[in-house]
Amino acid sequence: MAGTRDIRLEERPDPVILAPRDVIVRVVAACVCGSDLWGYRDFGNGRERLMGHEMIGTIEQVGDDVAALKVGDFVISPFSLSDGSCQSCLAGSTSVCDHVTFFGSRDEDHHPVDGAQGELIRMPLGESSLVVVPGPVDDALIPHLLALSDVASTGHHAAVSAHVGPGDVVVVVGDGAVGLSAVLAASRLGASRVIAMSRHADRQAVAREFGATDIIEERGEDAIVALRALLDGDLADAALECVGTKESMEQALGSVRGGGRVGFVGVPAGGPELHIRELFDRNITVGGGMAPARAYIPELLAEVLSGAIKPGKVFDLELPLAEVAEAYAAMDERRAIKVLLRP
Amino acid sequence: MAGTRDIRLEERPDPVILAPRDVIVRVVAACVCGSDLWGYRDFGNGRERLMGHEMIGTIEQVGDDVAALKVGDFVISPFSLSDGSCQSCLAGSTSVCDHVTFFGSRDEDHHPVDGAQGELIRMPLGESSLVVVPGPVDDALIPHLLALSDVASTGHHAAVSAHVGPGDVVVVVGDGAVGLSAVLAASRLGASRVIAMSRHADRQAVAREFGATDIIEERGEDAIVALRALLDGDLADAALECVGTKESMEQALGSVRGGGRVGFVGVPAGGPELHIRELFDRNITVGGGMAPARAYIPELLAEVLSGAIKPGKVFDLELPLAEVAEAYAAMDERRAIKVLLRP
Repeated sequence: MAGTRDIRLEERPDPVILAPRDVIVRVVAACVCGSDLWGYRDFGNGRERLMGHEMIGTIEQVGDDVAALKVGDFVISPFSLSDGSCQSCLAGSTSVCDHVTFFGSRDEDHHPVDGAQGELIRMPLGESSLVVVPGPVDDALIPHLLALSDVASTGHHAAVSAHVGPGDVVVVVGDGAVGLSAVLAASRLGASRVIAMSRHADRQAVAREFGATDIIEERGEDAIVALRALLDGDLADAALECVGTKESMEQALGSVRGGGRVGFVGVPAGGPELHIRELFDRNITVGGGMAPARAYIPELLAEVLSGAIKPGKVFDLELPLAEVAEAYAAMDERRAIKVLLRP
Repeated sequence: MAGTRDIRLEERPDPVILAPRDVIVRVVAACVCGSDLWGYRDFGNGRERLMGHEMIGTIEQVGDDVAALKVGDFVISPFSLSDGSCQSCLAGSTSVCDHVTFFGSRDEDHHPVDGAQGELIRMPLGESSLVVVPGPVDDALIPHLLALSDVASTGHHAAVSAHVGPGDVVVVVGDGAVGLSAVLAASRLGASRVIAMSRHADRQAVAREFGATDIIEERGEDAIVALRALLDGDLADAALECVGTKESMEQALGSVRGGGRVGFVGVPAGGPELHIRELFDRNITVGGGMAPARAYIPELLAEVLSGAIKPGKVFDLELPLAEVAEAYAAMDERRAIKVLLRP
């Protein structure tokens, strides 16, 4: 990404092992994230950068100190890399690892880390971050495996952070790929009713496939009125905030009953604060942040492999990596929910 | 309370049943709450008011429509009264009941509600709020039963809101009666380590009795340094904020690891907001508010009756109701942690 709406496909030297714990992965599929669109729409004073943080692939090469991965392994990469051994990782919060490392940034040795929208990627912390998919991988599984890299795990984090459980009435604010994934997660965790807030027919259809029992098209105060009408005057037990604006957080907070829970995974782009007095007075719990995808993938992977969940339905367009610029444009112009890229 | 440091004991007419669901309770014991001290220290433009919201007693009289309580029943009153039938009550969040009613305020019919620091109290919503203590009540149980009315339930709420469970390392910020009760709650819920932040020897002693494994006397940044030293560089899994100031909330947030949980029950008196970006970046969950004491009392009562917990140890001074002004002064001047009053 070199500027506003300026995505360039460039030839770069093949990556090489720089440290004994590095691995090189050959990308099988990557994708564009809703969060990639922020810089796309307003690059501001940004610096040219390598894009992509969601990826599945095969191990191409391993450093001398790598024991748990071998050449040919099919792997899923979580969108953030973690050491697997710090206090937060051991507690399952891999996204706030003491050594958390991001695609397109720098590793601990100050070496640049590749972006996932590419062909070959050098990965630090590969052994503690990548999850191996057992057995031969059917091509039909590709989108579902790729979804675990970020959106399915992030939607799951919204539901886990809101402690969604059997019988809960859950509202999902946001109908992007993460919001839709949150619908799937809430449904999977036993919610009796999952109410998707969406005004786009294509997204409503995926929401229904993912288990949404109701759709609310209204926004703001009108959405709360519609919600109360739907629930005979009641409100939801939990709301999953999957946008990241001040308005979406207010909608989530307004959707839950006293004692309710809000799980938030939209990167906060709006107001910088939560009114603690409101939380206190209404006994609302708020939790979330970046999903610990590494910790969630094994559990979700088992259900992808069994066919119990198909989180890859959020991908409604597939393009070759050569058309990566078009992938961004399609998502920016809402012609696609999420675009899968194949090198 | 008629002004700053102005507590008056006054003779008032005996209350009478005003509605068919009212009950009249004869107070056996009441007490002064840390939150009562705010108005005591700075009455501001407040109006003269009836004080007290914690109480145990016996049923003196019941309205015609009261079925579940009978004259002579020994009861514990939660500090807020609830209808037991709205969505929040049914979900266990009785403190945010649609018809929540407070001592010393007005009921739904605009009748004044008595304060608990008295001899006889008319109670609206008595049937759905009061919890009957079975069998004869030994006098030695009085402080422990009274503690359930607020502080033990509030400490429990801090721990429940922070999802304290077996093996957790828990920090408690605040060494008032609520903070000490939170130590007991965290310990009871299985925390492997409970670190009380306190610099008062008498309170440290109660904290130890309640299960505190460690004490930190430092405050602010120094407290976090001391905590890391205690935990070999780590931080706590959960922190219980039992004060309500901006500084205490910051101390609680700073005490937990990435992915940690903060339960807060101190009435927010400081900064009005939480920085959502910090919560997001550190994956911290924050929850709390006024405790749903009515929902918690039955579970805690069973353990008081079995002798498993002795939450009344927070009472270190007992006075006759006639000396209520001295009770306030003793707490204000920190000569007592919490004062029990007997009419």
